[in-house]
Amino acid sequence: MMKLEKKDILGIREMTVDEINLILETAESFLEISTRDIKKVPTLRGKSVINLFYEASTRTRTSFEIAGKRLSADTINISASTSSVVKGETLIDTARNLEAMNPDIIVIRHSAAGAPHLLASLVSQSIINAGDGAHEHPSQALLDMMTIKAKKGKIAGLKVALVGDILHSRVARSNIYGLSKMGAQVVVAGPATMIPRDIERMGVKVYTKLDDAIADADVVMMLRIQLERQKQNIFPSLREYAQHYCLNRNNIKLAKDDVIVMHPGPMNRGVEISPDIADDPNYSVILDQVNNGVAVRMALLYLLSGGNE
Amino acid sequence: MMKLEKKDILGIREMTVDEINLILETAESFLEISTRDIKKVPTLRGKSVINLFYEASTRTRTSFEIAGKRLSADTINISASTSSVVKGETLIDTARNLEAMNPDIIVIRHSAAGAPHLLASLVSQSIINAGDGAHEHPSQALLDMMTIKAKKGKIAGLKVALVGDILHSRVARSNIYGLSKMGAQVVVAGPATMIPRDIERMGVKVYTKLDDAIADADVVMMLRIQLERQKQNIFPSLREYAQHYCLNRNNIKLAKDDVIVMHPGPMNRGVEISPDIADDPNYSVILDQVNNGVAVRMALLYLLSGGNE
Amino acid sequence: MMKLEKKDILGIREMTVDEINLILETAESFLEISTRDIKKVPTLRGKSVINLFYEASTRTRTSFEIAGKRLSADTINISASTSSVVKGETLIDTARNLEAMNPDIIVIRHSAAGAPHLLASLVSQSIINAGDGAHEHPSQALLDMMTIKAKKGKIAGLKVALVGDILHSRVARSNIYGLSKMGAQVVVAGPATMIPRDIERMGVKVYTKLDDAIADADVVMMLRIQLERQKQNIFPSLREYAQHYCLNRNNIKLAKDDVIVMHPGPMNRGVEISPDIADDPNYSVILDQVNNGVAVRMALLYLLSGGNE
Repeated sequence: MMKLEKKDILGIREMTVDEINLILETAESFLEISTRDIKKVPTLRGKSVINLFYEASTRTRTSFEIAGKRLSADTINISASTSSVVKGETLIDTARNLEAMNPDIIVIRHSAAGAPHLLASLVSQSIINAGDGAHEHPSQALLDMMTIKAKKGKIAGLKVALVGDILHSRVARSNIYGLSKMGAQVVVAGPATMIPRDIERMGVKVYTKLDDAIADADVVMMLRIQLERQKQNIFPSLREYAQHYCLNRNNIKLAKDDVIVMHPGPMNRGVEISPDIADDPNYSVILDQVNNGVAVRMALLYLLSGGNE
Repeated sequence: MMKLEKKDILGIREMTVDEINLILETAESFLEISTRDIKKVPTLRGKSVINLFYEASTRTRTSFEIAGKRLSADTINISASTSSVVKGETLIDTARNLEAMNPDIIVIRHSAAGAPHLLASLVSQSIINAGDGAHEHPSQALLDMMTIKAKKGKIAGLKVALVGDILHSRVARSNIYGLSKMGAQVVVAGPATMIPRDIERMGVKVYTKLDDAIADADVVMMLRIQLERQKQNIFPSLREYAQHYCLNRNNIKLAKDDVIVMHPGPMNRGVEISPDIADDPNYSVILDQVNNGVAVRMALLYLLSGGNE
Repeated sequence: MMKLEKKDILGIREMTVDEINLILETAESFLEISTRDIKKVPTLRGKSVINLFYEASTRTRTSFEIAGKRLSADTINISASTSSVVKGETLIDTARNLEAMNPDIIVIRHSAAGAPHLLASLVSQSIINAGDGAHEHPSQALLDMMTIKAKKGKIAGLKVALVGDILHSRVARSNIYGLSKMGAQVVVAGPATMIPRDIERMGVKVYTKLDDAIADADVVMMLRIQLERQKQNIFPSLREYAQHYCLNRNNIKLAKDDVIVMHPGPMNRGVEISPDIADDPNYSVILDQVNNGVAVRMALLYLLSGGNE
């Protein structure tokens, strides 16, 4: 097997197709561990993984923590709300301090785009970006690609529609980089205020209407509306948003018959996705995404720790 | 040894006497582990236990965490204050997401009565109710019964007085179910505004005066006054409450000479219990309750994981 | 090797020179573990360490947690913000409850001076003071002494200058006790409002001017200005403070050529220390302090658990 030649996982933009394939294949081989009676292998015993979360999170932090523990790594959680972040220390000083404690990997989520890259340039440990502002969320895109590949047998040649607040979505950005690299055709739809101006340069096709985007799609990925954006007058009301962009029993029929529906969570049911679609096993692969998420994160921790050496 | 035929521990109401006895006996056999120099057995190695706490807690969460670690399980803590709960995800979606990460047991505390039952009906993992609103707190009642049994040699035939805010107390409710099933005579006392209307149907005798309830009691269990209830005009003032319902050196003499005094904690010293009673080793078994709590939770984790199979 | 005859680590004031030397030598022997590929030894397997933090902390809590995990102890974190502390339980009751769960060591940080001593007198477990009000922070002083010894080969005979808010600094107090015992000459400097009145009785020399204090110093330790003190009118403005007490490229020349610069963190860059000094490897040993901190805490956990027996 190939070795991952990277120190850090900062974004999908910097990844090659070979690297993505290596991570997905490693993750697939780890899937089985979580189904065992004893869900633990000694692979990363004596390694320590710090989860440094400057933004609230359940699923991503828990997913990385479980991934670490299943590989027998020690996991240490630091959340901004109970840390010396409140004392005004700079991110750089926090990072250098953590480095001096000799962890092996630091997983960071931060509201500022580029924060993980700054860390990576300063400390010798491996950094995993668990979401930085509206920039990238590479482990999410990897688990999304893993899910598509598992359900469709391939990624190349598929039509994937991303719907919602593309502008503020790190999930969208990482998926656009990844899916395009892997040969999918990516289209997006959302209110004009939620579409980045230069997005067509990323190779995606832009639609204003949901129906146009999901027509004949193999995969529809609905993005979370961040309710706090409402104050910024980016969209008029949740009700109006839902009227135009909520995936439901009617508009889903425009997609291919075997379309799969994805959502990174947490969902606003009835806003971006109707409950009957979210819960319909014929369409929804949302919980497969979560399940694959643990395997992808195990793969990242493993490969960054020098697995396959 | 018998096997526990339940997927979940939701309440004492649903438990049989045999099940209660099985749990208590298993807990008794685990007590010794916490006194060893190396307080750890490999029983649940590779199992993961998620502590999902929507309400603040020290002792219950810590007790479950220690119980899990002494059995070598991996423990993952999620507290609402630092989780995506703030993002407005429904409890159901949170639960399904956690399920997709393949933990073995989810321990949940929630302010809404019935929340654990909802989870249990939706996910395949075992759910332990660590307190749901004013409904049930089964592990507390089990540790209370374990403590009574250890101190008195039996439960059947004893007179047990519960004093205080019966109406809002999940501890009271679980104990009334459990102690009644086990053959104790349960009496309650408290201000009229703190006694549920239909409580006599549960087989308990109701008194308004503390003195009447604790007369000849073998066990007196004082309940915590939740100070935030004051705003609701349920009781006039702490001082007045204490005047009528605080257990102290004088009124304790009405109980049996060998009476034991219990409290689920955290105590409001001088409100529901006077400090000299709380700290008197002739009466108080409050710290035995805490000690037994770890053993009871070890037993629950063990039995739900298929122990005795 | 000697055995540590203490139950608790409450302060440097109560320590003998032999005890300090024992801890430093043990810590030095543990340094190497954190550089291994597998950073874990089974020494404290089956022991549990509770980190009970009533004040926000990143580095100290993380350092103790990593120290515990590298020795294979189970670590349990309790932070006031998510605990029943909000329910108004007394510290004593919290402590007795934790004691009843049979941990081996409780590490406590509290805003009240003397809180760890109160605990230590009440519970049978070992207590480590991780900072109590403006009183002591012994593990910090130990890691500082370890760092000085490593860089200078000795402590006795050195001139050590502590600069800043001596009055409110538990770091200063613990270091003054420790460094004096170990034979260093300690001098302090800071605004008159930040110097304790009776400090000369502790054997230190007091200066008002930074320049006088650091003249010919072997070690300069800059203390953190707690920005919230400003409200108390203890110092006029950060700008004015920095003008008089910030360590920078100019005034550092007054110290010995091979002076080392220390800071307990988190730093206010540009207030008590200029960034170019903080980051200059010719002067700054700040990250060595952090690195040694893990080793010192491993030593404390090990020695209190009966290591060397």
